Amino acid sequence: MTPGRPVPPPLALRIPPADDAGQDLAPEQAGQELLAAARGAVSSTSGLVPLTVARRAPKADDVEIAVEFCGLCHSDVHATRGEWGTQNYPLVPGHEIVGRVSRVGADVDDFAPGDLVGVGCIVDSCRECESCLAGFEQYCEQGMTGTYGAKDRRNGDAITQGGYASSVVVDRRYVLHVPETLDPAAAAPLLCAGITTFSPLRHFGVEEGDVVGVVGLGGLGHMAVKLAKAMGAKVKVFTTSESKVSAALELGADAVVLSRDEEAMAAANRSIDVIIDTVAAPHDLNPYFRTLRRDGALFQLGLPSEAMPPVNPGSLIRRRISYAGSLIGGIAETQEMLDFCAEHGVVSDIELVGAEQLDEAYDRMVAGDVKYRFVLDTTTLQAPSERADA
Amino acid sequence: MTPGRPVPPPLALRIPPADDAGQDLAPEQAGQELLAAARGAVSSTSGLVPLTVARRAPKADDVEIAVEFCGLCHSDVHATRGEWGTQNYPLVPGHEIVGRVSRVGADVDDFAPGDLVGVGCIVDSCRECESCLAGFEQYCEQGMTGTYGAKDRRNGDAITQGGYASSVVVDRRYVLHVPETLDPAAAAPLLCAGITTFSPLRHFGVEEGDVVGVVGLGGLGHMAVKLAKAMGAKVKVFTTSESKVSAALELGADAVVLSRDEEAMAAANRSIDVIIDTVAAPHDLNPYFRTLRRDGALFQLGLPSEAMPPVNPGSLIRRRISYAGSLIGGIAETQEMLDFCAEHGVVSDIELVGAEQLDEAYDRMVAGDVKYRFVLDTTTLQAPSERADA
Repeated sequence: MTPGRPVPPPLALRIPPADDAGQDLAPEQAGQELLAAARGAVSSTSGLVPLTVARRAPKADDVEIAVEFCGLCHSDVHATRGEWGTQNYPLVPGHEIVGRVSRVGADVDDFAPGDLVGVGCIVDSCRECESCLAGFEQYCEQGMTGTYGAKDRRNGDAITQGGYASSVVVDRRYVLHVPETLDPAAAAPLLCAGITTFSPLRHFGVEEGDVVGVVGLGGLGHMAVKLAKAMGAKVKVFTTSESKVSAALELGADAVVLSRDEEAMAAANRSIDVIIDTVAAPHDLNPYFRTLRRDGALFQLGLPSEAMPPVNPGSLIRRRISYAGSLIGGIAETQEMLDFCAEHGVVSDIELVGAEQLDEAYDRMVAGDVKYRFVLDTTTLQAPSERADA
Repeated sequence: MTPGRPVPPPLALRIPPADDAGQDLAPEQAGQELLAAARGAVSSTSGLVPLTVARRAPKADDVEIAVEFCGLCHSDVHATRGEWGTQNYPLVPGHEIVGRVSRVGADVDDFAPGDLVGVGCIVDSCRECESCLAGFEQYCEQGMTGTYGAKDRRNGDAITQGGYASSVVVDRRYVLHVPETLDPAAAAPLLCAGITTFSPLRHFGVEEGDVVGVVGLGGLGHMAVKLAKAMGAKVKVFTTSESKVSAALELGADAVVLSRDEEAMAAANRSIDVIIDTVAAPHDLNPYFRTLRRDGALFQLGLPSEAMPPVNPGSLIRRRISYAGSLIGGIAETQEMLDFCAEHGVVSDIELVGAEQLDEAYDRMVAGDVKYRFVLDTTTLQAPSERADA
């Protein structure tokens, strides 16, 4: 890295939203690379340490964003701790990013400095395959470029670095407009937990009067409850934990079933249209298939590291049940979700944390001790060093 | 049973289709119970022995059918051999029935004596549940009444007896019109093997240009190939057996993949829209999921008696794949299938057998030694006894 590049203090990245919105940065700042203050892992056991990340100068289609908030996703824990195989370090996680535009490239006309924007799990894709052309960038046949830890093919194969940082630079095609009526901190988790549950609900076609089952009441599960309710569905939450019954009802669930209670499960027989299963540990799905009506579907969103118990095909055959997967959502669909959330006043229940609390927050996430999503307040990041670590 | 009832010789049940079609039976025959010559099991090890079955006198909504042909389905083997749990004996199997109407009840106006008709796996259902009202009698919430071995709730809980018999009596709602242009013997397997594969193809919405995968090339598999081709799809057959490659191509398959050849499976990656899996033995589905495109589906039709290997949820998540079941088809859909087959000249490839060959045919089915369906010619049944066995 070349030392001596201009390093604005991180707080200067916060552009006031109201009066100054739309103002361009000073000309002398245009075209310059930016050093961002960040937190990330430098090994699988390092925890999250202060890092400085070099963000590319915005190219013609790029949007530079002063990050305000970034949600903490379970994936961040797995990735930084190297639990998903070989990982490039240093690694700055974070793909639930909300902030304000600080600079835009010459060809960007749908974003302007000051705009409240979001970035989710995807920062690039091939833009040419059938999936990309259909707006399903998450299923890009060349493989989507993840917001962190991925090779950035259009930027010299640099490893992407995520949103636990004071700024990010992202191609305009992967940047979302965040409605100003949404609380920006509580909106951050919509970019992953929100869209991951919204997409299968919409794909199934959930509407007024449908019954939606939600398995697991964590970051994803609580969003599934809120979104399904906002779509007009009745919601039945399945949980192993008696302590979550009242929490589920508070979130708006119409009923809670203790999944280890065989009688309660039998009583739920053939009562549900679609199940959103957010549990990432191995679990037997056959009892859940029995709660589905004809043509019902169970969408599994979590990817357990060990094998799931076998599916009994008879459970599927007897009512033409589908056992399906679903991966986040496409960009257009993510915008639709954000607009839907603004219309229905849906955001995540969050606990705001500072940079110094990230390691503790990770441990609490692993222990399931959060209601329901941690969000990093980026004002707590230290100023970046004069040299980038990544 | 009351002895001394009138017993027409079985061949007299054959009503000539052309000149005499539409003629009613002689008045003295109306309202009388009929004894049918049949073949069935009297224990799990008896094999198929001559039996006489009492068929009820047609009630107002009933259609009495002089059976001409009945296909032999793998289910028949499992049921007669008691491989699916406790079984009522004697048991006359057979649910791929084609014959001609011999008598109709007073309220039947959509069938007349002489009509070529069919009966499949369903002879009754509750007619009130959401599934029945929607035309999905096979998913009846009270449980459909199977054509054999089931309690016939509207007929004194008698156990239903199937189509390896000279006659059957079935409520008009569950009787199909078989187009006269179809060869009646080769049309018989359409009533189970045909509709079981037609239904998921239609449910998925297969159309011109789609790619359909077919796993297993037996009675169901060969129908799936023919029906998918008739729908305008390209068909890729998966088989473990090199010897079936030429047979698959002869049936019209566009490509054949040897499923144990890892390279060939890898080459089929993401090439298929929907897979019809007809294999009833445990097998690993994950390699097949990889051959599906985004939003593809695998319909499993066979029910293995042992557990399937676990599904890797990642296979489903990465492309929003569905792993689904499907059970035969509804009555209206079965009629649609028969009309579709007439329009496209689709029937089963069959080997006609006589009553004396049934046990051997069963052994050959278990060994997979049939191209592709045995059909019983009911003219080979002995005359019924003067007393019914069932």
